[in-house]
Formats: sequence, structure tokens, C-alpha cells
Amino acid sequence: MADQDRGGGGLDYRSAGVDLEKADRAKEGIRSLVEGTRDRWTLSGLGSFGGLYQVPDDVESPVLVSSADGVGTKLKLAFRTGVHDTVGQDLVNHCVNDILVQGARPLFFMDYLATGEMDEGVIEAVVAGMARACQENRCSLLGGETAQMPDFYQPGEYDLAGFIVGIVGRKQILDGSRVQDGDLLVGLPSSGLHTNGYTLARKIIFERAGLSVEDKIPGTTETVGPALLRIHRSYLPSLGPELERDSIRAMAHITGGGIPGNLPRVLPEGLGARILKDSWQVPALFQALAQLGDVDVQEMFRVFNMGVGMIVVTDPDEGPELVARLRDRGEGAWILGRVEAGEGVELE
Amino acid sequence: MADQDRGGGGLDYRSAGVDLEKADRAKEGIRSLVEGTRDRWTLSGLGSFGGLYQVPDDVESPVLVSSADGVGTKLKLAFRTGVHDTVGQDLVNHCVNDILVQGARPLFFMDYLATGEMDEGVIEAVVAGMARACQENRCSLLGGETAQMPDFYQPGEYDLAGFIVGIVGRKQILDGSRVQDGDLLVGLPSSGLHTNGYTLARKIIFERAGLSVEDKIPGTTETVGPALLRIHRSYLPSLGPELERDSIRAMAHITGGGIPGNLPRVLPEGLGARILKDSWQVPALFQALAQLGDVDVQEMFRVFNMGVGMIVVTDPDEGPELVARLRDRGEGAWILGRVEAGEGVELE
Repeated sequence: MADQDRGGGGLDYRSAGVDLEKADRAKEGIRSLVEGTRDRWTLSGLGSFGGLYQVPDDVESPVLVSSADGVGTKLKLAFRTGVHDTVGQDLVNHCVNDILVQGARPLFFMDYLATGEMDEGVIEAVVAGMARACQENRCSLLGGETAQMPDFYQPGEYDLAGFIVGIVGRKQILDGSRVQDGDLLVGLPSSGLHTNGYTLARKIIFERAGLSVEDKIPGTTETVGPALLRIHRSYLPSLGPELERDSIRAMAHITGGGIPGNLPRVLPEGLGARILKDSWQVPALFQALAQLGDVDVQEMFRVFNMGVGMIVVTDPDEGPELVARLRDRGEGAWILGRVEAGEGVELE
Repeated sequence: MADQDRGGGGLDYRSAGVDLEKADRAKEGIRSLVEGTRDRWTLSGLGSFGGLYQVPDDVESPVLVSSADGVGTKLKLAFRTGVHDTVGQDLVNHCVNDILVQGARPLFFMDYLATGEMDEGVIEAVVAGMARACQENRCSLLGGETAQMPDFYQPGEYDLAGFIVGIVGRKQILDGSRVQDGDLLVGLPSSGLHTNGYTLARKIIFERAGLSVEDKIPGTTETVGPALLRIHRSYLPSLGPELERDSIRAMAHITGGGIPGNLPRVLPEGLGARILKDSWQVPALFQALAQLGDVDVQEMFRVFNMGVGMIVVTDPDEGPELVARLRDRGEGAWILGRVEAGEGVELE
């Protein structure tokens, strides 16, 4: 429909910075990646106005569990390093974990990718990462929006948000109401910073310490780029089987706010948590951040996950066997504390 | 948990530009707005990791219809004018229309709001707009993510994305397969630019014509600010009752790409559309944009909705009665063309 032969003075959408045909080509590249994530309930792919997904018929009293998330300023690491697929995985895994803690398994995922300049390679890398993580979590990548917003994002930069919908039977919902005084807290290791604390981490690493992405992080064997880009892991493979066993009373995904900000969200009124700080070794990356930034330990725990990505609350009689099963699955689980009368989180 | 008494040299999250307590306060203000949108299927509010929504039991073979969208650079108008609630309405209504065209009614909505500096008043205005539109569309505002991303968005600026989930019975899905040669096309008026073409419109108005938001748009009685901020309307009140009558064969929401970019998405292989350009008066705003920017008419139709916000495809025998019913509901509907053998869109 475009008329490229018009007289020189006329404005069109391309000269204003938006290239619809380039957007269409990028969509074609994305299509095949997305196709690989379809399952038997997926009724539509990209191109339709909305994505269609049939409600699975194998769940009694089905409840949808939905979450919206972003990657935050971890994206700046992708911009600095030119590695764009892992942030897509970060986003999907983060969303999967956020509904997993309520007992849900993922059905489908949608993304919002906003960019100033359409760079086909970058968009495809981001979507490839999302598609890979969707496949790993058996989640259909049902669609998304790619927005071209010139004058909005700096060249080469973008923002990325994700939305997930999962399902759980009404009786299987985990909402913290089953948690009791004396319950055990089982910790599962994080794979790195996950997607939180990057504003402070970048300030410490790049401004305070003056490091570049190729420099080694003091006290560790890793360079800055790979260390800060480590993928936010999904806990679905380890914990999905436990949901089916009904061995879990509550779960807390340790995101922004750290353990003190997230664990109390699943504890009933009148109950708090005692965390045994010596029950695990805080990974070297967090120790380096604390040292380089001269950050107080309480602030470290409030901003970063400190090596604990997920906390499972379980019956004290079940705890040791739960830990053993998780370890059999290759998961580095340990007992990191207990629930007790009170409020908030005590670090002991 | 924060330790504000630490020695002067230490970094904390607040000095790095992220204020968690301010974020918590903003969430409190948002909570009451969100509460007003809850319906009997909503099982959770804000604060839990994921939002919970029971699958309604009054739909046979329920299919979820989902869409992700942004507001695009229309946000720049909100920044220029300081009016932040209408973009929230734009976003919800856009999403509602995108699933309506597949026959779905909305269940719930989630948002992603990313900003550099937390301005409590602005965030609350945006959320108030979303909550208002959710109430108008009987849609639960189930949750969302407010991301503080310093160094990412310019002060006072933000990006906004929305995600909607609706429901339709499997047999009621509209996917274009029912459309036949000779079907009538019924147009429904847009309320303005809706959420598309703003990059070009801003270039024409602010750069080419050098107007400010307080200036009158030549040839119209409106000033730039209110004209460009006019709310993207929802077609659910007008078209919801028609879905129940089964009088509609397909619908196209006229968004980015205009009529030529959107109508063919719901036409089966081998069928095209003839649009009678004289069947409606292109609103003065679009005429002003074409004139001020010296934009070719084909390009205008490819970028803007040109006064047509929604197109309904209907049986030719049903068409006149459908139009009459819509007009009885106060809707400015008219017959704007027909489906015929061929491909794409002919403007006649």
C-alpha cells in the first residue's frame, strides 16, 4: 500500500522512524521459534488479534494464576555485552516461578518488547531465548507485542515485559494458609542475582569499582559479563513433582526485597521466620558486591537473594525426605530455617 | 530491615535510585482502585506472587483469548500535557477490542508500568485510568508490575504495557472462517487516532507545523493536547450484545497498519475487501494531519484509522438490521463496503 513515489516534501511513516515492512519481516523470523512451543491446547499462533488457548479439561475447579514481570535493569548487561537471548530466558523463568509458588503450572506466556530502533538480530535473539525457556517449562509462547517507539528508547536499547497464565485446581492453591508454627524452611540455590538488585550491582561494579564486562570479579573466577548475566533459573523441574505429592505448604520466590521482603508474603498473621545464616555459603558474587560497595549485610539481604532463589515451607516430619528427594533430582536443597511465632524475618 | 545509620561510604538501594518504601506506599494507593474492579471470580488481589482468577463455569468448552499491547508514543502526549489517566484507559480499551474481535469477553487485565523516577501521583493516575476502564468493561484488574528503572527512562517518562485474558466458547470463536463473498462490511467510528500513528502525528504536529499542545489544530475547533489524547474507545458495549445474537461473522480492530493492514487478517484466502471511501466523512483531525504533513492518502490509510475504529463483517441479509440495532444503541454505524473475490483492500 505504501506509495514511495510521492513528491519529496511528503512525510511517511518510514521517514518518521517506523518501518512497518521491517517489522513484518522480523515477525516472520519469530514465527518459527514460536511454533515450537505450541501444545495441544494452543489454538492460534501469531498474527491473530488475540492468542487462543483452550482451558485444559484435566483440572478440577480450574483457577488461572497470572503474573506480569520485567527483567529490570539487567537488560543493561545485555546491551553492554551484546548477549540478548538470556534475558528472554530470565523473563520466562521469573514468571514461571511466580506462579509456581501458588501451586500453578504454566499454560501460556506473552511478551511486550519495546524498542527505539528495530534491530532484527536482537529481537530474534530475545524471542529465541523466550521460546527456549517456554519449551523447557512446557509453556506455549502464545504471542506478544513488538512496539517501535523512536524517540523513546536509546538506540540499541529496549524494554521487555512478560505475562504468564498458569493453572491450578482450586483445592491445590498454595496461599500460605496451610503454614504452621514449627514448619521447616527449605532453601533452593539461586543461579546468580536472578533479576533483582541490578541497579545497585551495576553501580557497585561499573561506577564504584570501575570494572568492565571483561574484567574478573575480585575474589571469583568469573568475569563481570557472564556472572551478571547468569540466567534466572526455573524451579519447575525440581518442584513440579513435589506439587503433585502435596508435600509443600507454601513457597516464596526470592525476588526484589530479598528473603525479608518475600518470605513474609506467604506466612499467616502471627507467624515469622528464623533464617540460619550459617546454613549455606553466600556465593562469592554477593560477597564481592558487599565488599566492593561497602554494603551493609542487612541491606544486602534486602536487595539481593544472597544465594537463595526459592524457599519451600514444609511439615517438619516431611522436611528431611523432601530435601532428599530434591537432592536426588540434582537440586542443592538444604534446611535453612523454620517458621515460628512472631512476625517478619530474623537472620540468625 | 534497612539500616540507614551505616557509615557514610556504603552504598544502598535508595542512593542507587530505587526507593522500595516509596514503591510500597504507591502500591497502597493503587490497592483501593484495584479492589473496585474485582468480580466474583477474582480470588486474589495485589500482593500475592500471581493473581488468581477462577475459570467461569458458564461457558461451554472455554477458550482463553489473550492479548498484549502497549500505548506506543501516545505516551509522549501524556508527558507533554501532564494528563496520565487517559493512557491507562487507552490501554485497557485497546486490549478489550483486540479480544472482542475473536468473540471473547474480558476476564482480567494486568499491566506493566516501567519508570525511571517513581512519581506517586503519576503512577496512581495511570492506574486510576486502567481501573476505570476495567470497571467499564467488567474486567478484573488482577495485578501488575511497577518497575523502577533508573538510567533507563528519562525523568517524568514511563512505558506502559497491558495484558488481557478473555473467554469465549469454542463454537463461538470468530476467526474469519465464516466470512463469505458478498458479505457486508459495517464500520464503527473511531474516537480519534486511538493508539496508532503517533510517531508520524507528533512529527507533523510538533516538528513540521511547530504547534504546541495548547494550539488549535488548523481546520478544527480542538486544541492539540485534547485532540491527540482522545481516549481509544471500547467497542464492547456496542458489540457485546451482537456476539450473543451471533449476528457477526468476523471483526477487525483497526490498529497499526490501518484498514489495509488489519481487515485482511480476518478474510479467508481468496477474498478481499472493497471499501467505499465516500461512505463516511474522514474526521477533520485526519484531514489536518494529511494537509500539514503533505501525506499521501494511501499512506494516511496505512498509518491511521481515518475515522474507522472497528469493522464488522456480516451476512448481507443481516447487515441493515445490524446497523439499525447499533444505531439504536447510540453507535454511529454505517455500511462501508463489502467482501469480494480477490485479495487485500481496494479503496474506491
